[in-house]
Amino acid sequence: MSKGTVVLAYSGGLDTSCILVWLKEQGYSVIAYLANIGQDEDFEAARKKAESLGATKVFIEDLRAEFVEDFIWPAIQANAVYEDRYLLGTAVARPCIGRRQVEIARREGAQFVSHGATGKGNDQIRFELTCYALYPEVKIIAPWRIPEFYNRFRGRKDLMEYAQQHGIPVPVTPKAPWSMDANLMHISYESGILENPKSHAPADLYLMTKNPEDAPSAPDVLEIEFKIGVPVKVTNVKEGISKDSPLDIFTYLNEIGGKHGVGRIDIVENRFIGMKSRGIYETPGGTILLNVHLDIEAFTMDKEVRRVKQGLGIKFSELVYNGFWYSPECDFVRHCIAMSQVNVEGKVQLSVFKGQVYILGRESPKSLYNEELVSTSPC
Amino acid sequence: MSKGTVVLAYSGGLDTSCILVWLKEQGYSVIAYLANIGQDEDFEAARKKAESLGATKVFIEDLRAEFVEDFIWPAIQANAVYEDRYLLGTAVARPCIGRRQVEIARREGAQFVSHGATGKGNDQIRFELTCYALYPEVKIIAPWRIPEFYNRFRGRKDLMEYAQQHGIPVPVTPKAPWSMDANLMHISYESGILENPKSHAPADLYLMTKNPEDAPSAPDVLEIEFKIGVPVKVTNVKEGISKDSPLDIFTYLNEIGGKHGVGRIDIVENRFIGMKSRGIYETPGGTILLNVHLDIEAFTMDKEVRRVKQGLGIKFSELVYNGFWYSPECDFVRHCIAMSQVNVEGKVQLSVFKGQVYILGRESPKSLYNEELVSTSPC
Amino acid sequence: MSKGTVVLAYSGGLDTSCILVWLKEQGYSVIAYLANIGQDEDFEAARKKAESLGATKVFIEDLRAEFVEDFIWPAIQANAVYEDRYLLGTAVARPCIGRRQVEIARREGAQFVSHGATGKGNDQIRFELTCYALYPEVKIIAPWRIPEFYNRFRGRKDLMEYAQQHGIPVPVTPKAPWSMDANLMHISYESGILENPKSHAPADLYLMTKNPEDAPSAPDVLEIEFKIGVPVKVTNVKEGISKDSPLDIFTYLNEIGGKHGVGRIDIVENRFIGMKSRGIYETPGGTILLNVHLDIEAFTMDKEVRRVKQGLGIKFSELVYNGFWYSPECDFVRHCIAMSQVNVEGKVQLSVFKGQVYILGRESPKSLYNEELVSTSPC
Amino acid sequence: MSKGTVVLAYSGGLDTSCILVWLKEQGYSVIAYLANIGQDEDFEAARKKAESLGATKVFIEDLRAEFVEDFIWPAIQANAVYEDRYLLGTAVARPCIGRRQVEIARREGAQFVSHGATGKGNDQIRFELTCYALYPEVKIIAPWRIPEFYNRFRGRKDLMEYAQQHGIPVPVTPKAPWSMDANLMHISYESGILENPKSHAPADLYLMTKNPEDAPSAPDVLEIEFKIGVPVKVTNVKEGISKDSPLDIFTYLNEIGGKHGVGRIDIVENRFIGMKSRGIYETPGGTILLNVHLDIEAFTMDKEVRRVKQGLGIKFSELVYNGFWYSPECDFVRHCIAMSQVNVEGKVQLSVFKGQVYILGRESPKSLYNEELVSTSPC
Repeated sequence: MSKGTVVLAYSGGLDTSCILVWLKEQGYSVIAYLANIGQDEDFEAARKKAESLGATKVFIEDLRAEFVEDFIWPAIQANAVYEDRYLLGTAVARPCIGRRQVEIARREGAQFVSHGATGKGNDQIRFELTCYALYPEVKIIAPWRIPEFYNRFRGRKDLMEYAQQHGIPVPVTPKAPWSMDANLMHISYESGILENPKSHAPADLYLMTKNPEDAPSAPDVLEIEFKIGVPVKVTNVKEGISKDSPLDIFTYLNEIGGKHGVGRIDIVENRFIGMKSRGIYETPGGTILLNVHLDIEAFTMDKEVRRVKQGLGIKFSELVYNGFWYSPECDFVRHCIAMSQVNVEGKVQLSVFKGQVYILGRESPKSLYNEELVSTSPC
Repeated sequence: MSKGTVVLAYSGGLDTSCILVWLKEQGYSVIAYLANIGQDEDFEAARKKAESLGATKVFIEDLRAEFVEDFIWPAIQANAVYEDRYLLGTAVARPCIGRRQVEIARREGAQFVSHGATGKGNDQIRFELTCYALYPEVKIIAPWRIPEFYNRFRGRKDLMEYAQQHGIPVPVTPKAPWSMDANLMHISYESGILENPKSHAPADLYLMTKNPEDAPSAPDVLEIEFKIGVPVKVTNVKEGISKDSPLDIFTYLNEIGGKHGVGRIDIVENRFIGMKSRGIYETPGGTILLNVHLDIEAFTMDKEVRRVKQGLGIKFSELVYNGFWYSPECDFVRHCIAMSQVNVEGKVQLSVFKGQVYILGRESPKSLYNEELVSTSPC
Repeated sequence: MSKGTVVLAYSGGLDTSCILVWLKEQGYSVIAYLANIGQDEDFEAARKKAESLGATKVFIEDLRAEFVEDFIWPAIQANAVYEDRYLLGTAVARPCIGRRQVEIARREGAQFVSHGATGKGNDQIRFELTCYALYPEVKIIAPWRIPEFYNRFRGRKDLMEYAQQHGIPVPVTPKAPWSMDANLMHISYESGILENPKSHAPADLYLMTKNPEDAPSAPDVLEIEFKIGVPVKVTNVKEGISKDSPLDIFTYLNEIGGKHGVGRIDIVENRFIGMKSRGIYETPGGTILLNVHLDIEAFTMDKEVRRVKQGLGIKFSELVYNGFWYSPECDFVRHCIAMSQVNVEGKVQLSVFKGQVYILGRESPKSLYNEELVSTSPC
Repeated sequence: MSKGTVVLAYSGGLDTSCILVWLKEQGYSVIAYLANIGQDEDFEAARKKAESLGATKVFIEDLRAEFVEDFIWPAIQANAVYEDRYLLGTAVARPCIGRRQVEIARREGAQFVSHGATGKGNDQIRFELTCYALYPEVKIIAPWRIPEFYNRFRGRKDLMEYAQQHGIPVPVTPKAPWSMDANLMHISYESGILENPKSHAPADLYLMTKNPEDAPSAPDVLEIEFKIGVPVKVTNVKEGISKDSPLDIFTYLNEIGGKHGVGRIDIVENRFIGMKSRGIYETPGGTILLNVHLDIEAFTMDKEVRRVKQGLGIKFSELVYNGFWYSPECDFVRHCIAMSQVNVEGKVQLSVFKGQVYILGRESPKSLYNEELVSTSPC
């Protein structure tokens, strides 16, 4: 007799595989849900694994296009940066993943959703706030906060043993001595050997960006066109390549940014629940877009509107970081910001080189720039 | 019969040389004042020139140390950035220059001060607000806003003719097709051929920083130590060089930043009086310090204090940009910010390479970072 | 040969009558424009006076309904209060008056507009910013800032003499020893004997509100219904009277507020151009609405949306005070605020008594109030 | 064998008497602590009651003077108002009570503190944040959040039965159909029959203020003198009475405000934990001081400093409401605000009448008001 159906956010990894089996043990029917938001993953292998572990259904959902359009684009419009440095790559992905998860839960009549986030991070909060906002009646099973679970699995060793006992394929490669979160926008690295804030990150950590020292010795020059504050086209000026769908644009900017080592940061940030945490991030395409959007916005937006909007963007960033994407205040702020972008339109030329983005020039039919007025000097 | 004494902010260039002579023609006694705030200048030549043009006295004042301590350091504490990008290199220099100018005017019994700033820029405002704040009774002579002056000198040609007629040495090298403002913190380039916001800046424009393409192919690794939010020591980890006075620290960071092409930006900004203006800036040492201060501050400051202080820093930046350094509200905000820095103490390691600053690690006796707490994963 | 046509904001008083004649003397064709925004005025007498002084046309425009709907209502939505106390009665009227004035100027082909505001107040700025925003090519004639005018008219005596010489009817009653500005929303009193901030205002100063000491000894009880943040109906619960058009609602609230002496304040405020100024205001209906809107808004708006909106309301108030109603930033802020009001709907009961407004209770179909949840005590 | 010593915030009422006995039953030694912050209470009776119930020690602490000086005065400096209306009378008292409670706990070697606040209100949070901030190692026992307790005491009836069984004196007068919190600054009323936000409050609810309808028919006229933003003297102009210690000043303002029915509000507010709550408050002296401080501050503070400080005051109010008096950010904001008050000095005359405070005039040696400058009219 089933306790009900759970939609589990399944990653294919050891943790959520153990959770899948454990939930079954507890008497739940488990639907495995795996969102493709651009991470490097063998989705078919994950599907088979989930099926073999007893998932009643498996949903592999390609959310990449909606991730860009519905989540990354508003962040770009907002110039969203948390605590002056972090571009919120994980934070904007959570509501995207959660939105589909509750859609599936509703559609499949599941009363429960579950996830493998730990009890000290931001992600549990982001995940759960999204679920409650969009499906208030849902019940959330967070195994890493349930004593029966976390007392049983006190470390990786316990999970490995459990996996062996229950026919869960055990990873053959050793786990990296840090944890990662990867999606189309960024990869984050934290904990493990990175926890000591004084230790330098290993040079071979980064998966999305080249080491700037090894990056090409000549820049790429791009032109990015914006409408209502979001990119509608990117052109590689020398190579003549251009992209014009949101997903293609963002993917291409990741490619160029990655090739030139753009968007690496090593920071200490304040988590929602107060503690400080050291994180290393690489956000190649997002870093290019932040710089370029700042430029076209400054070029086309009234000075005083910009000041008000800057404050709203900071508020937006805090809300998103803290998991409140689906909240009345974030809705409100997002709509205000969107309203500010009506004239943010035009083209920016830029070069990308050795970890840096250099703005070269800009033009716009909506420019508020007046070349005659600005001419300052009689000589 | 003299109309009174004017202390003229004299640069040694064509404009202020013509102004010096013109003021004498108008019946004023002229004291020439030239502030050394780190620009590349032959100060002795300028002294002789001013004397030969009839200045009754010439003051060449070395303000470099106080520029760093009293003006750049508070900007670093504030993470001062105007409109998300401009590090305020000119804006922080104006009150420093103006402060000494009114000191001289008071000491010498001069009722007037004068400057060569044009009528469309921010600098006239910054200069004049400083003078009025510190010497409310002073009268300001701004020739570029006086019809008799600006109608007579409608272009460089008029100035050149006037110079020839009055024995003012005429520059032999042709004027660059843009205008510049240089000091220890930055060089700005604007107007002339840069006015078209679409045109790319010429590659040979920059004087303070190497082109990143030509920068060394290996990074420099530095350690910067902070107390109360300002650097107290910089060490080049590999080379073993270290500096520990404010001026030496800043000068050394300019050297390292300049060598690696750090701190170049090309932006459109909103001037105080509303119009948009395209400016190109290079701020090597300031850019390094902004990044490093952000890091040590995040590491040692309470999350919520940081949020309040971030808002005050934005306010501070607007006030400084707009020339209000010496205003009750800027005083207030600056004191609040200084109060927030009491625990901003510790060391940051960083590398500087091809136009970028990379934070590598940090440590602090005042850290709020708790390595045990932050450990997130059971495996 | 006319210098062109001027649309003069004409009040019927001595100042603007002299200005009308003086403008004619200077060679302009003068159109007199008098806005009815609820002040107590003999408009037909003013029309005749303007015609007799040589106005080529006279426009008496009843703007009361649009003043309420387009200007007072947005201020109510914003809870607009300047410096925590002033309800902006004059500031919201200026853009209303100016809007129609430039409409007339455009329609009549006038290149000039003129007004009688002095050179030290806020109103000149509010007036002129409105005109330039809506009719950028217009030229403004501000006689009180023109040396030929203000040197000729150094005091009331000069105006009186000029009036007698030019057949301008001279006021027979002596001028009050202060100046006033009256409209549907408020009357302000300032200058003259009120300038000394220590002096108490005379008891007989107020024209719109009864002295609370003489007000009825029993309250009136009202119910006000709101939709999208603005009142749509007011009912006098005991008397059964109700009103439901914007102008009728506001007029009735003025009547009730005035009868009970509501909305008198005596403050020192900071004018746009820096100086402090003592002003006495009576704002009967506006004060009732501010209180009631605060209540229904708190009842129906999400907590965090309210915080963001509160900040926008303060910004809005500063912009309106400073004359920037028609500016990109005020448009932006006003639209954001309007967006926040979609659910501000419901009914508030209140009593009005001896200068005070007491909220008694509220209900709303959009309430976020949950009676079950809030129940706190087990006993 | 005792589980340890608890310092219980004891009120003398039914709830905390039951908690006292229950804690003993659980094996704790109980120290009863009762703070006198100006509420109307028979403190000696409470002492005897606590002793008779088995408290090992009883501390009755007169905190009235420090409540005014250390908590109410900073709120006055801040113009502290939560959500535009609530003067924070309960919120400023909690850290005052908690501070002494942890002092006692430390001094007496108690490892535990306990309180009778329920699990849905703000007070549990305010209380506990104070304790943890000042005594991080302390353990808090919150019976109303402990299942063994709240399941046993499901209503007043259970408490009454328990009281009878354990010799706890049972209140003879029936409980009011709402709950109250009283101190020197205010009385709040909520829950019970007040929970329905539409119901009007009963006329006989208020204990601190007279019904304005029954208040004297002539005003009292006061003069209040400020230094560094806090009152240093109050004088009743007609009666010649004056007070000059903080506690005497505040008590006298309560007397005058109470006599004239000043400071009654009926609001719906947003609690920390999100839900909306209807509260009725009377804050006679605090309301007078808020009005008067606003006036002297506007008179003596620079316009732009005021704007920055206004934002900090709103932040302060939110922090205090939410219980963060003892937090790094509240410390920071409070110090910034205090710094803004150095010149807030002078005298304000005001009248108090029928529920209202009317400012009549003000003077200051630090005034920024310039009577000559402000004179606006040529006639």
